[in-house]
Amino acid sequence: MACFVGVYGMGVMGQSLALNISHHHYTLAVYNRDGDKTREFMQNKVQETDQITPSYSLKDFVAALERPRKIILMVKAGTVVDLVTDGLLSYLEEGDIVIDAGNSFYKDTERRMKHYAEKGIKFFGMGVSGGEKGALLGPSIMPSGNRDVFNDHLKQLLKDIAAHTTTGDSCCDYIGKGGSGHYVKMVHNGIEYGDMQIINEAYFMLKNACGFSNAQIADVFEDWNRGRLQSYLVEITSKILRVKDPCGTGELVDAILDEAGQKGTGMWTAMDALEKHQCVPTMCEAVFARNLSAQKDERVYAAREFGKQAEGQNLSPKILQEEISTFVTDLEQAVYASKIMSYAQGFSLLQAASDTYQWNLDLGNIALLWREGCIIRAVFLERIKRAYDEGKVVNLMLTDEFKDEIKSSVAAWRRVVIAGIAAGLYVPTIANSLLYFDGYTSEKLPANLCQAQRDWFGAHTFKRVDKPRDESFHHIWEQM
Amino acid sequence: MACFVGVYGMGVMGQSLALNISHHHYTLAVYNRDGDKTREFMQNKVQETDQITPSYSLKDFVAALERPRKIILMVKAGTVVDLVTDGLLSYLEEGDIVIDAGNSFYKDTERRMKHYAEKGIKFFGMGVSGGEKGALLGPSIMPSGNRDVFNDHLKQLLKDIAAHTTTGDSCCDYIGKGGSGHYVKMVHNGIEYGDMQIINEAYFMLKNACGFSNAQIADVFEDWNRGRLQSYLVEITSKILRVKDPCGTGELVDAILDEAGQKGTGMWTAMDALEKHQCVPTMCEAVFARNLSAQKDERVYAAREFGKQAEGQNLSPKILQEEISTFVTDLEQAVYASKIMSYAQGFSLLQAASDTYQWNLDLGNIALLWREGCIIRAVFLERIKRAYDEGKVVNLMLTDEFKDEIKSSVAAWRRVVIAGIAAGLYVPTIANSLLYFDGYTSEKLPANLCQAQRDWFGAHTFKRVDKPRDESFHHIWEQM
Repeated sequence: MACFVGVYGMGVMGQSLALNISHHHYTLAVYNRDGDKTREFMQNKVQETDQITPSYSLKDFVAALERPRKIILMVKAGTVVDLVTDGLLSYLEEGDIVIDAGNSFYKDTERRMKHYAEKGIKFFGMGVSGGEKGALLGPSIMPSGNRDVFNDHLKQLLKDIAAHTTTGDSCCDYIGKGGSGHYVKMVHNGIEYGDMQIINEAYFMLKNACGFSNAQIADVFEDWNRGRLQSYLVEITSKILRVKDPCGTGELVDAILDEAGQKGTGMWTAMDALEKHQCVPTMCEAVFARNLSAQKDERVYAAREFGKQAEGQNLSPKILQEEISTFVTDLEQAVYASKIMSYAQGFSLLQAASDTYQWNLDLGNIALLWREGCIIRAVFLERIKRAYDEGKVVNLMLTDEFKDEIKSSVAAWRRVVIAGIAAGLYVPTIANSLLYFDGYTSEKLPANLCQAQRDWFGAHTFKRVDKPRDESFHHIWEQM
Repeated sequence: MACFVGVYGMGVMGQSLALNISHHHYTLAVYNRDGDKTREFMQNKVQETDQITPSYSLKDFVAALERPRKIILMVKAGTVVDLVTDGLLSYLEEGDIVIDAGNSFYKDTERRMKHYAEKGIKFFGMGVSGGEKGALLGPSIMPSGNRDVFNDHLKQLLKDIAAHTTTGDSCCDYIGKGGSGHYVKMVHNGIEYGDMQIINEAYFMLKNACGFSNAQIADVFEDWNRGRLQSYLVEITSKILRVKDPCGTGELVDAILDEAGQKGTGMWTAMDALEKHQCVPTMCEAVFARNLSAQKDERVYAAREFGKQAEGQNLSPKILQEEISTFVTDLEQAVYASKIMSYAQGFSLLQAASDTYQWNLDLGNIALLWREGCIIRAVFLERIKRAYDEGKVVNLMLTDEFKDEIKSSVAAWRRVVIAGIAAGLYVPTIANSLLYFDGYTSEKLPANLCQAQRDWFGAHTFKRVDKPRDESFHHIWEQM
């Protein structure tokens, strides 16, 4: 009997997704270029009850599928996707469906859609978040492509295998046409960079300004995780900080080198925001923070040269004992307000992309897709949905859902940023979230001077406050 | 008699450059697609003594030039360069030289070089900075391409028409192969964005935190311009602030709308730095500051919603009268230290590009090319050259030339950032320059926690502080 769906690629993610599909009682065929991986998978991971058919040639793989064929690619993003799809082409027939579930760049996805459409193949981009565990137990799934094809052939499957909320909602829904699925996943990742760096800075301040032990910091995060900051990342942070080093006496976190890696999606988000003339300092500084962390040798040398070696940036005026509990309370407000700013930037970017590409994204609904399965899952996302339910959102900070909460946090947030800067601590995302807030809520910025400078040296013209916006002026600032 | 060189494109920049070339006693032919512009130019701008031959067809233009032909394109960056060069091709012969003097993206320049090399045409990229006035009186010129062709055919001309320092040095020199000339010009512009925004923030603070009038602020900049901050941008800023509004009673700067425009080179610099995993917060935040300024309507609305309307962000605790003179002195230190950080980031980016593309850039020499003619010209650039004369530079802040000065500025700089943030003023480049300094001089950053989080949710592995850097570890943080 022909299988309902095929999974191409038996890496960790492909295997997990295949099992997930099987657990939902869909029949499937699996294939990997190197057959050994498929054999290993069949032997070690697949139960008798799983209706999984292994294929060891492309031809067999495609032949095993019912028509229109639905093939989910779980391969490395980049040229591999083109190579794999090209390879499949000679076996596929008009109307067959190829779904790229990797972290592809959305412009590549759009290019592929057009390219394979010429051959009658329906190509889908699909953002999948949640890592190995998510892929197995239910990830957040963000598919884009032809809406009718999605409804007729993919909707049920993808909604089934996605994560579900406690109230039974599936964390998968149709995102839009074109590369919108991969775009939304990219911005999800950019937001993830921001969330992580905000948490890292809170840890950094608790450690260096308050002098807290890992256990004390874990307590703080555990406490926060019972409140409005409740989220997967805060939760694992509190747990990480208690994990003992298997090769040492202290906690493992202290044995880990402070050089952050990256896969590039945060970088893409920042670059894309720049290209769209958006302002996303929280996400972008989170990327820069990783880049700077990776310059470990330079930092060690610079710290010595500037007399700041050892743990605690020695200019750190530690927070006074009697002020610590206030500081921790302030910090929760700073972290929360920074998180709102980060999401405000991310959702403004999604809106800008939606307007640019006419994707007609439903941003409230997208927030709901991130409630479970993915790395940034949090109760907070329900609030974003509620903010979008208010009507047209210009910026999340202006919604009734968030406005008063921000107002009541500003003083504490400002104290935290000032304490961090006074202590010489590198806290770029918490500080830039506040700067973003201050800039966005400023009626007047000094860009009038910038325009005067540009008009002086480059005759770039300016607009006047007392004239219509469509009139431009040039002043002869000096005689040549 | 055949002309020595041709200028294609009779826009403002093309006209100015043509006159500049003529004033240096080179014969030249000029051409513009629309012949009216050429006629206008010949009638209104060209003197009898100028040896300028107007051409009204491509064929005549090319025929007017001695061989190998040298044609400087002064056309809009982008596809136009390809179209123009393609159009020229049927008239050009092997060995002819085409020089793109627009603000082209360096990757496009590299592509064109390869493309036209197949046809025997020597293609050069050439960064030109200085605007209309620079093009006429001597710009900073950054050419790249084949070194021998440069030496044999372009060097004398370009060195002659470039700006010269008071000691007679020409602000033109061979940059390197490939697109390095346009790359260096791009980073120059990124640095320019940083310089401008740092100045704008100083103006913003003097206005809103000190309550200074435009004349008082002009005095401050005039004073700074007599010291180590002496530069074209500081100079024109002091002058701009005194210019009366021709249509009003006050200063013109107050009548200019605070919405900054941009041509994109700052954005490219930030995007390119992200792509190269560099950390350039000062330049990038200067770009974001322009983007945010452009959201004027949103800002006006947000200011009202958050009770911050009118000039002075009403939470501004104005600096006390008796502390103002200290603040102004502090501010000079903050501006100078921020400028050092901005250049440290820019030159690190240049080094990264030089390493990536094997351009072998002479960074000290590049600093010298910016001493005159261009927008960022300043005495400061001599100091950068001296820093590079010390030997290998890892980061400008670590050089003897700058290190002690930074150390002595840190306290004042920190006070300024704290005052700005306390006052609710959006000062992203001065603040992020300090954050960059604090981050770069931190032996320990919280990226160990980041790596733990990444290993938890994505099995991305980490390195240990007590193991060699080439060993990676994965911890089973929890059972699935």
